[in-house]
Amino acid sequence: MSEEKANQYSLPTSAITNSSPSAYENWFEYPVRVYPHHTDYAGVVWHGTYMTWMEEARVEYLRTCGMNYADLVALGCDLLVVELSLRYHRSLRLGTTAILKTRMSELNGVRINFDYALESEDAKELYVTATVTLVAVDRERGKIMRQLPTSVKDALLKISNPMN
Amino acid sequence: MSEEKANQYSLPTSAITNSSPSAYENWFEYPVRVYPHHTDYAGVVWHGTYMTWMEEARVEYLRTCGMNYADLVALGCDLLVVELSLRYHRSLRLGTTAILKTRMSELNGVRINFDYALESEDAKELYVTATVTLVAVDRERGKIMRQLPTSVKDALLKISNPMN
Amino acid sequence: MSEEKANQYSLPTSAITNSSPSAYENWFEYPVRVYPHHTDYAGVVWHGTYMTWMEEARVEYLRTCGMNYADLVALGCDLLVVELSLRYHRSLRLGTTAILKTRMSELNGVRINFDYALESEDAKELYVTATVTLVAVDRERGKIMRQLPTSVKDALLKISNPMN
Amino acid sequence: MSEEKANQYSLPTSAITNSSPSAYENWFEYPVRVYPHHTDYAGVVWHGTYMTWMEEARVEYLRTCGMNYADLVALGCDLLVVELSLRYHRSLRLGTTAILKTRMSELNGVRINFDYALESEDAKELYVTATVTLVAVDRERGKIMRQLPTSVKDALLKISNPMN
Repeated sequence: MSEEKANQYSLPTSAITNSSPSAYENWFEYPVRVYPHHTDYAGVVWHGTYMTWMEEARVEYLRTCGMNYADLVALGCDLLVVELSLRYHRSLRLGTTAILKTRMSELNGVRINFDYALESEDAKELYVTATVTLVAVDRERGKIMRQLPTSVKDALLKISNPMN
Repeated sequence: MSEEKANQYSLPTSAITNSSPSAYENWFEYPVRVYPHHTDYAGVVWHGTYMTWMEEARVEYLRTCGMNYADLVALGCDLLVVELSLRYHRSLRLGTTAILKTRMSELNGVRINFDYALESEDAKELYVTATVTLVAVDRERGKIMRQLPTSVKDALLKISNPMN
Repeated sequence: MSEEKANQYSLPTSAITNSSPSAYENWFEYPVRVYPHHTDYAGVVWHGTYMTWMEEARVEYLRTCGMNYADLVALGCDLLVVELSLRYHRSLRLGTTAILKTRMSELNGVRINFDYALESEDAKELYVTATVTLVAVDRERGKIMRQLPTSVKDALLKISNPMN
Repeated sequence: MSEEKANQYSLPTSAITNSSPSAYENWFEYPVRVYPHHTDYAGVVWHGTYMTWMEEARVEYLRTCGMNYADLVALGCDLLVVELSLRYHRSLRLGTTAILKTRMSELNGVRINFDYALESEDAKELYVTATVTLVAVDRERGKIMRQLPTSVKDALLKISNPMN
């Protein structure tokens, strides 16, 4: 494991038990491209940039099941990030295109988990894996909701079913 | 737990076993203030913003033990983020000041772990807790280092000792 | 002019002499969508966010004439922003889609000017107009180039001709 | 002018008629430091980053005359950026510290202009000059204000007087 390129380094842990690209076959796919503003002095994507792509992919994923995030906010419901974890497997260089794959992995009351895998277009390189947990918040009352609005729940169940 | 404000919501999990502020008493302190560019439509800090503060705090923390991060990079050594996890306990509003506390929690070969806790100035509110793992990379050869440069190791041992 | 919504305010100056959407008819078009990370506490796009979209549009515009920006950088040529100006006419809200239109307006030695207009999809609303000036820099020698590399010049002339 | 370093390039125009550092002697000073997240692949500050520092300096400058920006927003008044222009004279590298100097240069009804100059600590290097125009907006009614709230006007007059 000693001789990887920095932009191709492997995580020196047992971080990902099975990173076989096929594991992400039926996930929602969001294509990304690395522009200068995504990079840092090392010529690769700055580690915080991935969170912008994860958010964008999540919003688009929800849209595929009929949920417009801006509408949801306008109706008084926020989906707040309460937990987040990322593992960086390989760096992504300026100009590279890649596919950010995501799926809803758990729906537990008002808590929603999303898994992510950022892969090369040919699915042979794994750049980043991540997990995000959101909770539904009532914007006006300023409180975590006791249950999801029906429309949200129905939409989420629609995307969760293909996984099972 | 039902009546918190959204900007004061508690994480509905056993996320932090003991978030007693005193736990962070001897950590390095980096003050932050919320400017408009840190916020999102919800009027609170966007969840990815914390990573910029964590990086800044880490660089300043290393400086206190004589390690200038830009010099380290110029000498050919990068500290790459390979793992990152955050838990968001309470939201931070526009204009708020807070203290980001950090310490090096582990030094294992070329892997370095930092813990973080973002607290209110009076240490009564806990906003975010986080952990980051870095590895030292040889920039020119493009490889994870087999061992830390002596100067880096000495500096890190200097900051790790007060903890023990 | 007194009764506009804040998200529909008009610039109280003679900023744009003629903002007739038809002015941008043959410009390169780059679609954008407002995600949460683009917004600030006011619920609209933070004023600095537009610069990320302008950069992305510019890189894609150059690609249409066969110039891959990452390749250009790899070959040792940077296009550095040396001047920039923006006028904000209307705010863009969370979830909105819009079209960022751009064209190269001037090529003068190693200086290149790009004009921008961010419009609604139906071209009836004008959100932002902007101008950016870049200069070509030799990355290795660290100097402004005396002339553009031939490949760059040819590509730029290719996109500049349709305008004249 | 042909032999400057890219990180020390001069703007090949008559951009700044007189960039004598003494011109900024009595301006408000906001110190900045370049962290990795501020940089791009070229190893220098990404051109959009300066807008975050300009906003921070502006908020702190207003604070010196007793105006807390978050309070202003809470009271229903926003200061929206309507025009912005920057000139990039020299690039700022990772780890560099510099002083962002600002002053209110004009107060015209609800329009407020700020000038900026980013200089090295010894005031011998000029990195960026910029101008920003803001207008006061009534958040609730969603309209540009006809006149500034008295408290705002008084505060701004307080900072504008020392200039004259």
